[in-house]
Amino acid sequence: MQKCFSLFFIFILSLSALAQNQKRARDYGIKIGVMAPGKFNSITDVSGVTVGHTTLIKGDSVRTGATAIIPHSGNVFQQKVPAAVFVANGFGKLAGSTQIMELGNLETPIVLTNTMNVATAMDALITYSLAQSGNENIRSVNAVVGETNDSFLNDIKGRHVSTADVLQALANAKNGIVEEGNVGAGTGTICFSYKGGIGTSSRKLPKSLGGYTIGVLVQTNFGGVLQINGVNIGKELGKFDFSNQLLNNVDGSCMIIVATDAPLDSRNLERLAKRAFLGLGKTGGIASNGSGDYVIAFSTAENLRVAHSPKEKVNQNNTLHNDYTSPIFMAAIEATEEAIINSLFAGKNMQGYKGNVVEGLPIEKVLSILKKHNNIN
Amino acid sequence: MQKCFSLFFIFILSLSALAQNQKRARDYGIKIGVMAPGKFNSITDVSGVTVGHTTLIKGDSVRTGATAIIPHSGNVFQQKVPAAVFVANGFGKLAGSTQIMELGNLETPIVLTNTMNVATAMDALITYSLAQSGNENIRSVNAVVGETNDSFLNDIKGRHVSTADVLQALANAKNGIVEEGNVGAGTGTICFSYKGGIGTSSRKLPKSLGGYTIGVLVQTNFGGVLQINGVNIGKELGKFDFSNQLLNNVDGSCMIIVATDAPLDSRNLERLAKRAFLGLGKTGGIASNGSGDYVIAFSTAENLRVAHSPKEKVNQNNTLHNDYTSPIFMAAIEATEEAIINSLFAGKNMQGYKGNVVEGLPIEKVLSILKKHNNIN
Amino acid sequence: MQKCFSLFFIFILSLSALAQNQKRARDYGIKIGVMAPGKFNSITDVSGVTVGHTTLIKGDSVRTGATAIIPHSGNVFQQKVPAAVFVANGFGKLAGSTQIMELGNLETPIVLTNTMNVATAMDALITYSLAQSGNENIRSVNAVVGETNDSFLNDIKGRHVSTADVLQALANAKNGIVEEGNVGAGTGTICFSYKGGIGTSSRKLPKSLGGYTIGVLVQTNFGGVLQINGVNIGKELGKFDFSNQLLNNVDGSCMIIVATDAPLDSRNLERLAKRAFLGLGKTGGIASNGSGDYVIAFSTAENLRVAHSPKEKVNQNNTLHNDYTSPIFMAAIEATEEAIINSLFAGKNMQGYKGNVVEGLPIEKVLSILKKHNNIN
Amino acid sequence: MQKCFSLFFIFILSLSALAQNQKRARDYGIKIGVMAPGKFNSITDVSGVTVGHTTLIKGDSVRTGATAIIPHSGNVFQQKVPAAVFVANGFGKLAGSTQIMELGNLETPIVLTNTMNVATAMDALITYSLAQSGNENIRSVNAVVGETNDSFLNDIKGRHVSTADVLQALANAKNGIVEEGNVGAGTGTICFSYKGGIGTSSRKLPKSLGGYTIGVLVQTNFGGVLQINGVNIGKELGKFDFSNQLLNNVDGSCMIIVATDAPLDSRNLERLAKRAFLGLGKTGGIASNGSGDYVIAFSTAENLRVAHSPKEKVNQNNTLHNDYTSPIFMAAIEATEEAIINSLFAGKNMQGYKGNVVEGLPIEKVLSILKKHNNIN
Repeated sequence: MQKCFSLFFIFILSLSALAQNQKRARDYGIKIGVMAPGKFNSITDVSGVTVGHTTLIKGDSVRTGATAIIPHSGNVFQQKVPAAVFVANGFGKLAGSTQIMELGNLETPIVLTNTMNVATAMDALITYSLAQSGNENIRSVNAVVGETNDSFLNDIKGRHVSTADVLQALANAKNGIVEEGNVGAGTGTICFSYKGGIGTSSRKLPKSLGGYTIGVLVQTNFGGVLQINGVNIGKELGKFDFSNQLLNNVDGSCMIIVATDAPLDSRNLERLAKRAFLGLGKTGGIASNGSGDYVIAFSTAENLRVAHSPKEKVNQNNTLHNDYTSPIFMAAIEATEEAIINSLFAGKNMQGYKGNVVEGLPIEKVLSILKKHNNIN
Repeated sequence: MQKCFSLFFIFILSLSALAQNQKRARDYGIKIGVMAPGKFNSITDVSGVTVGHTTLIKGDSVRTGATAIIPHSGNVFQQKVPAAVFVANGFGKLAGSTQIMELGNLETPIVLTNTMNVATAMDALITYSLAQSGNENIRSVNAVVGETNDSFLNDIKGRHVSTADVLQALANAKNGIVEEGNVGAGTGTICFSYKGGIGTSSRKLPKSLGGYTIGVLVQTNFGGVLQINGVNIGKELGKFDFSNQLLNNVDGSCMIIVATDAPLDSRNLERLAKRAFLGLGKTGGIASNGSGDYVIAFSTAENLRVAHSPKEKVNQNNTLHNDYTSPIFMAAIEATEEAIINSLFAGKNMQGYKGNVVEGLPIEKVLSILKKHNNIN
Repeated sequence: MQKCFSLFFIFILSLSALAQNQKRARDYGIKIGVMAPGKFNSITDVSGVTVGHTTLIKGDSVRTGATAIIPHSGNVFQQKVPAAVFVANGFGKLAGSTQIMELGNLETPIVLTNTMNVATAMDALITYSLAQSGNENIRSVNAVVGETNDSFLNDIKGRHVSTADVLQALANAKNGIVEEGNVGAGTGTICFSYKGGIGTSSRKLPKSLGGYTIGVLVQTNFGGVLQINGVNIGKELGKFDFSNQLLNNVDGSCMIIVATDAPLDSRNLERLAKRAFLGLGKTGGIASNGSGDYVIAFSTAENLRVAHSPKEKVNQNNTLHNDYTSPIFMAAIEATEEAIINSLFAGKNMQGYKGNVVEGLPIEKVLSILKKHNNIN
Repeated sequence: MQKCFSLFFIFILSLSALAQNQKRARDYGIKIGVMAPGKFNSITDVSGVTVGHTTLIKGDSVRTGATAIIPHSGNVFQQKVPAAVFVANGFGKLAGSTQIMELGNLETPIVLTNTMNVATAMDALITYSLAQSGNENIRSVNAVVGETNDSFLNDIKGRHVSTADVLQALANAKNGIVEEGNVGAGTGTICFSYKGGIGTSSRKLPKSLGGYTIGVLVQTNFGGVLQINGVNIGKELGKFDFSNQLLNNVDGSCMIIVATDAPLDSRNLERLAKRAFLGLGKTGGIASNGSGDYVIAFSTAENLRVAHSPKEKVNQNNTLHNDYTSPIFMAAIEATEEAIINSLFAGKNMQGYKGNVVEGLPIEKVLSILKKHNNIN
């Protein structure tokens, strides 16, 4: 009976979610930063990058999923992309980091999921890679899987994400608009005590600064003192970590994926990844002790692809000179900040495991606070 | 004649500086963060920490100096303090970093100066350490010196800071109020296109969160899009990097020193140092390519001091459990943000090398923007 | 028919293995280093450490397994041990590294297996941890799994290690003598073109140097120019990488686990881990591009255990002063070198996947070369 | 009178040094490794690399100097070379490391000297760079200076190396044969309790492996259990650390410089640097607590030079594919091992500070031990 009630409740919540306008922060006049977004204001603005979700909402306890980010439409194992990882706070289970750091490249799509299904997603990525045409002879796959902990809303110990679910997320990957909020790996996550989830954003540099696109996708599940475009929302709503001057649960995590078409080698991608961390800070994130915060950055620049079985010993690379990286760094900060805020605007009320409920960001209240601060254009 | 004029100009500037009210950001009602500052809202709120400056303003071209931060009043070489370094952007000349990282401690005061006088300051720290009573037999000193580049206002190639100047800064070190702005190593620095310099701030945690004090001192010399307590000042004033959509000079650097009395070992101090970087981001800093941004964190907790010639092979340490670090992390973010803003409020107009002029933050304009955004209490 | 033949061949090989004397290097008078081994010359000489294997030799293609190293007999999740990772060459799939580095501790046993079964072993470690009494409320487990690639002898794509196999390895863990060679995670590995596998060794420091025990366990699967106690065996046998002046397959990996009862915190454990890498070098290993070489070090010192749910905010720790670490470093180098050599002395002929055969070290030839060089006492 | 005697003693020692045959290890038939050396078996075999020394032997207490390694004959600041640093044990005062790591390049020659003259050498490198034609407008120089501690033989507190001495070492730089032993920065150093100093060696890969040259130069000042080409010389002579089972002075340091003409970017140069550490291990080095062991690697490949003021935003680079790095790694291990042994063969008896005496390696004894072990061809 209780279960029936819960399901009904979720149904109502979902309806109410649909009823709410699916507007993003920018649609409300919240303009984060000074640079212009790309066409979809999404990681998919970086040409070739696709994103797919599998969302698992089952019964009253399963609120989880998987999100796949695929760097290009070819065979990623055979044509690896330059990549880097920045460990902002290593209290997490990111798989594949040391090989990215050592070899400077990424040879699988990136999958995000919940903390206890990292192994499942790794297995799925191996299966995916082994099955791809051209990979018949490979015998080693560096599966890259990030996670955050959705155990408040999700029966995480049940490890409900299956290999098939992850393969489905990979199969679902597409370009264009990326679904945000309670989807994929963001289905059960919480951010600044509100419903977090998946968020994305991008920046397109003017020609004079290189014309590059920088896209970010986040899985938000962390705390701090929420700031939206600088306004201390958390403070004004009295809802922030240590607001009662006690050590409450500030933990959680944030996975940040940064893509760019700028020709950055792994060294400059690591620097880029580090800047994304500043974007997290600008939303009020504090990288608390228990928050596994990681940034993975990759470049889609074709001439920087690394062939698995190179025909030539020496790669012909064109890499951007250090001196021209600063606008790209700034773009990554802005896009990360906006992606996180987007995850909150898209996050909707969710009830889950043990009847726990997390509310979505109270958008009307937030807008009214922003207006009070003349922060909406 | 021009020189006379310049000197006169400086005199007037100085007078005008004195005439201006030496109010800090908080005195104007700008309350950064949610935590309370310590008594002096300064790094010296961490008991035992002292700060000294030597300010060099000579003729029309020398605008530089040195700032010393001394962790405790004893012999720092004989009683080393646990310490860590976070390299936010390593385009700088920080001396002493690898030994801090390897051994987990700091054995000299920290000196800040200009880029081309790092060697001078190292030599001075060696002289200082060799001369201290009890150090007669030492034959190795890990001098820790940070820097930023003040070459717009200062004849940096002249390497005008002398060993005596650095020793004087060390001798000047005292507790209580720390002079901010155009002093010491901040004499000739520029921040967000305005006059930067030295800034400091602190946070005192409530008893329930440990009661610890966290203090920060910064030497600000970097760019980005200035935000004060979240308000996009740089954007509103149209004065920010890439505002003309061209690659202008966004470079510079920020040295950040974090002190705490919390019993953190070097591993958790490294984590703390990383959080201070978020404070820089919240002021609009982007850690541009050319910005040498470093954080040095140390703990003054007495039981964590490391004896140079230990009587016992095994140290009796009491270290804070990881689970209790989050409020300290948050405090470091807030204090770093406020220290940077304080450096801007204290920075005054300065003319120097080649007649170059940098204006201080236009405080009245800034306050009016903050008011427009209801950001002043 | 071919399969029958193969199985028969393996049978004969196994018999011949049994027929060979199971003597270890030291039993032949090969004394590596200058320090004395512990009682069993094994990682289990570090009190409390246990090791268990699951060896999978099935049909003509499955030659793999799992090896578990358990730091202490209690609940490792509730009583974490200080730990560190050194990434010698990150071309590998080590799981759990970033959390060890961040938090400075290990909360599960370490499992070694083949490259494509890392996910399986992670899942098994989660299951193991969730099932332990006292862990009812945990919702996050940092499973630590290392691997090397046994695909020459093993049908690695079949991912033949099951969760049950890994749980069995954990259940098999015991103190005392550790089986070496073609067992557990070493069943299908190759070292210096000979049959590698599991090896172990230890050093016990004299009282005057602290009296500590340092134990090492390795999973050997790498190349270079084999040196045994300094003698260039590979060179003399003409069997080494690039011996034909062509880029042949030099890849493989080495997992190195270092345990000690010395009270080292994570910072000094990282330094210890780095020294083990020198032991690999002394056997002629070159950490080739494709070799995923990692060292995990942990301390069993009871007062350094980190409680999952601490009663006190501040830990009472006794950590060894930096000045007293050098003999422990030296012991780790010696024990790593000897553990690798032990893996070769224990490795026996093996036929596996696609009929591939790898021969064990030709012990008689090796002894004769060592004798020629007066290297046997 | 005592001074006279000392000077006389040094005179005799010097004569005896001259009397001794200046043969290098390889001249005695000691063939380290399996790869062939370059023409001079020296770092200068890497085309363009030059080395210069200033040796300071004054009175009875000054036994020190400076050694400069210049990557190419052009303006290194304007045409920076890709470079990396590996911190094997960070108990040292290496200057310039963080900028090399961040930007991936080296913009000055490398100078080696004693621990307390690092600042002097930095100042000299700034002076050198500012004075070079084409550098009129620079205002920041990342001076790279390594050191070891020669205080047993040298009055290190006197800081006797002057700026002029360092500039002289730079001016002395030449290609071809490199003087080894008690010269330059090696004048007063000690290795395995014998007289260490400067050593160098190289490897030239066969065409089939790329044909690249790898050169190494070392400043040896460390301990452990000396092994020459695998033979435990230290053990046989009873002269090694902890030989009396007490914590004696095992400290010291080793600076290792690796040059190559292989087109390695900074990421692969860091990997190369890490391998050089294995060469140190093969000589019996243990990277003891107090040993500041660092490796700096750089590539002279012309197309990888980084212009200070780039004409193009995008660099046209040709970098070696990861898959082809292994022979270069192996070459660096061999050349490092041989360079260290060469420093010992060249090191001669030296008396210095406080009358302290360090003997050169007893070559005849060593040769006889090597012969006993059939280790000389």
